Amino acid sequence: MRIIRKIFSKSRSLEDGIFFDAIGEILGFDPINLNYYKKAFTHRSSNKQDQKGNAINYERLEFLGDAMLSSVIAAYLFSEAPAGDEGYLTKMRSKIVSREHLNELGKDLNLIRFIESKVPVQHFGDNIHGNIFESLIGAIYLDRGYEYCEKFTQKRVIIPYVDIARLEGKVISYKSLLIEWCQKEKKQFHYDIFEDNGIDGQRLFGVKLSIDDKVIAKARATSKKKAEEKASQRAYFAFQKKIDNK
Amino acid sequence: MRIIRKIFSKSRSLEDGIFFDAIGEILGFDPINLNYYKKAFTHRSSNKQDQKGNAINYERLEFLGDAMLSSVIAAYLFSEAPAGDEGYLTKMRSKIVSREHLNELGKDLNLIRFIESKVPVQHFGDNIHGNIFESLIGAIYLDRGYEYCEKFTQKRVIIPYVDIARLEGKVISYKSLLIEWCQKEKKQFHYDIFEDNGIDGQRLFGVKLSIDDKVIAKARATSKKKAEEKASQRAYFAFQKKIDNK
Repeated sequence: MRIIRKIFSKSRSLEDGIFFDAIGEILGFDPINLNYYKKAFTHRSSNKQDQKGNAINYERLEFLGDAMLSSVIAAYLFSEAPAGDEGYLTKMRSKIVSREHLNELGKDLNLIRFIESKVPVQHFGDNIHGNIFESLIGAIYLDRGYEYCEKFTQKRVIIPYVDIARLEGKVISYKSLLIEWCQKEKKQFHYDIFEDNGIDGQRLFGVKLSIDDKVIAKARATSKKKAEEKASQRAYFAFQKKIDNK
Repeated sequence: MRIIRKIFSKSRSLEDGIFFDAIGEILGFDPINLNYYKKAFTHRSSNKQDQKGNAINYERLEFLGDAMLSSVIAAYLFSEAPAGDEGYLTKMRSKIVSREHLNELGKDLNLIRFIESKVPVQHFGDNIHGNIFESLIGAIYLDRGYEYCEKFTQKRVIIPYVDIARLEGKVISYKSLLIEWCQKEKKQFHYDIFEDNGIDGQRLFGVKLSIDDKVIAKARATSKKKAEEKASQRAYFAFQKKIDNK
């Protein structure tokens, strides 16, 4: 009996170790209390409760994470758009924290691989990706405080995705911007497409964008066009200064 | 010429000193950069601009302060209402940060005395009180960071005003609660009303609530009834444990 318990506890801590590494990789810093992150991925269908009978699932963390994300983005826009008035700031924030965008962020990090649920993953709609992205931010707040929500948002939202010009509709397509630049600079570029079965057979397209035979950016999306655009956007950020000064 | 300038600069720093003390009193801690707080009370009618031509007024700070306040309240509710689901938390937060409530908070601190405006104060509607309450929180964020927004909100919003039972509609009147308790405990109580001309001749009623001839709470409001209720609420918080265990 004692031996069995030991094996179980060993296997649990191995699992925790894998979870710790995977979460740390996403966060960009070490988690302290893994329980917050476990809760962030526990779906209500698990029917878990704490000793007081309160439900253990990610829904309350979503509320918390949404609030933290909103205030981090508010502070970012306040500092980055000094000429924007209150209406402008509000509009830009809505675009960044839109349901669609949060779903994309959650999908890109493949957060759904951590979900604990009695409902099969393929039965979930698209919103689960954004919901657990928010709950993850809630968990970060509880585990490490506001400053780490800022760090995470900087790393996973602002740097890779937030481009004020794009949000304002000034940039229509990063692919065309990039092609134009490559042609002017006489650089060779090509997009390599590969099909990707993603999670549970959901068809995804992967794209590698190479410039002068060096892979510059990769992206995955539900269509070839979207994946190319995403990869172009990432390449654009990598080359931003060069492109803007063309 | 030099002497005049010296006098001016002296008189300005005296003004700043008074402002510093008054703001410090409201915040519960020292401000570092007074300029943020000055901006928090600058109305757009002042037509001020910075060197880059960006408007200097409190409107952008309102956006920032609103976001900070929302996230501080979200974290508070998350921790204080462990049994409340996402919908409950959202509803409670809306009540706390309602326009009406923010106006009340701003009025109680008499923030309008700091306003810099070309429009006479009496021409403003009620919302200015809540707006500059929010912009003040925005200024705190810029000056001292998130943690000080939490401190301020704790001191000026949560402790004096947030009562989850009341927000849930479980407590109808603090006055009746208090009277009932005084009668049971055989304590003498009386409300003393005095008229108060407030700001710019706006008629306000002041109330002092005494229990066993000791002044327990004071409040001001636009009606006698409201002022009594507010004073009762404050007394209730002072005696909360005793009353709840009656």
